[in-house]
Amino acid sequence: MDEQAVRLGVHDLIAAYSDCIDDDRLEEWPDFFVDKCHYLITSRESHEAGYRHGIIYAASRGMLLDRVTSLRRVLMYEKHRYRHIVGQTRVSKIADGVAEAHSNFITVRIMHDGETNLFAVGRYLDRIDISTTPFRFVERLVILDSQKIDTLLVIPL
Amino acid sequence: MDEQAVRLGVHDLIAAYSDCIDDDRLEEWPDFFVDKCHYLITSRESHEAGYRHGIIYAASRGMLLDRVTSLRRVLMYEKHRYRHIVGQTRVSKIADGVAEAHSNFITVRIMHDGETNLFAVGRYLDRIDISTTPFRFVERLVILDSQKIDTLLVIPL
Amino acid sequence: MDEQAVRLGVHDLIAAYSDCIDDDRLEEWPDFFVDKCHYLITSRESHEAGYRHGIIYAASRGMLLDRVTSLRRVLMYEKHRYRHIVGQTRVSKIADGVAEAHSNFITVRIMHDGETNLFAVGRYLDRIDISTTPFRFVERLVILDSQKIDTLLVIPL
Repeated sequence: MDEQAVRLGVHDLIAAYSDCIDDDRLEEWPDFFVDKCHYLITSRESHEAGYRHGIIYAASRGMLLDRVTSLRRVLMYEKHRYRHIVGQTRVSKIADGVAEAHSNFITVRIMHDGETNLFAVGRYLDRIDISTTPFRFVERLVILDSQKIDTLLVIPL
Repeated sequence: MDEQAVRLGVHDLIAAYSDCIDDDRLEEWPDFFVDKCHYLITSRESHEAGYRHGIIYAASRGMLLDRVTSLRRVLMYEKHRYRHIVGQTRVSKIADGVAEAHSNFITVRIMHDGETNLFAVGRYLDRIDISTTPFRFVERLVILDSQKIDTLLVIPL
Repeated sequence: MDEQAVRLGVHDLIAAYSDCIDDDRLEEWPDFFVDKCHYLITSRESHEAGYRHGIIYAASRGMLLDRVTSLRRVLMYEKHRYRHIVGQTRVSKIADGVAEAHSNFITVRIMHDGETNLFAVGRYLDRIDISTTPFRFVERLVILDSQKIDTLLVIPL
């Protein structure tokens, strides 16, 4: 696969991921990851300090599935949705069937009553399995610029 | 035309459209559409409920021209401008000379006194005529995430 | 170099530039410019009126280096960082080893205490030297949509 095709596939994966969450199709969300994956939402400070834990953490696709289940059945929260705006993606490395990419994003939250506000801003640091189609995330680190967000974060970013 | 060229053309059309509005060159805005076009600004709730009406609606290029005329000559409103930030575009289908694409966007409104605020967030659902150059919109649905915007919406998105 | 490769390189330059600033690697910032460059942050009103001065101005890479030095050693300001979200880039012209491109952007500012707000919105008007690798800016005009920003602007955009 040539570099251009890889970039295009990475671009589409990242856009499809946002659409899935923004459309509230959370049951499909784990399918964007390989089985043995790593998903983490954390703050820039924690990430730079080298901590591997965070606000939301999953070390397998099964844990992502569990998260969706609890989100749908257990957690109590005011209904809301997101809209992701993802800036230009940089593919920094392609080797051994894995592409490394990162993108900045901004997430606007829309509450049930229509109230809209700038919810989160940060960057995605991705490692993507490009050896099979469709591409899937091996690792997606969501590095938030602010630590103020914790208690409000229910839906994945 | 190969797929890469189509994507590039779609990308450029969408960016040029935003520039036209943000630069206040509204007289050129109808030229981004084919004669028998469909332009609609609506809310996500209305769109998902299957309604075909909305906040702003046009079923032909002529109606778009009328809109610009009334906006320039008739409507009274405080002077303001937009800045569109359009995220990554997904081209989901290319068939029969028409490309289907969608993109998330955020629009910041700048009032005459310099006040700046997050005005609208949503997505574009586009059907684009790629059989002639330049590409033109056959259909552009502007699906807003919030319904709170109605009375303020004068300039097209 | 074919057009596709130029576009890709321009895209990567613009993304790398944002990363450099957002990561607070300001010492590397001048390296994104050729020696005899032009960097200007100004407002849309000033730009449209044809003024060549602005809020921040540099006519050489040396002046950019000076700016970083004073920013690190001299200027007193509350610690903060940016996150840039850059929309789709349009490459409008490629000629004589120079590509012209423009992109809309939004910059979110994150203060030391985690407070996050929409700081600046505007567009980049770029002239990029593509005759050598890596690509570098010959000119980067940062046209802000609002004039309200002046006193707060310390870090380059």
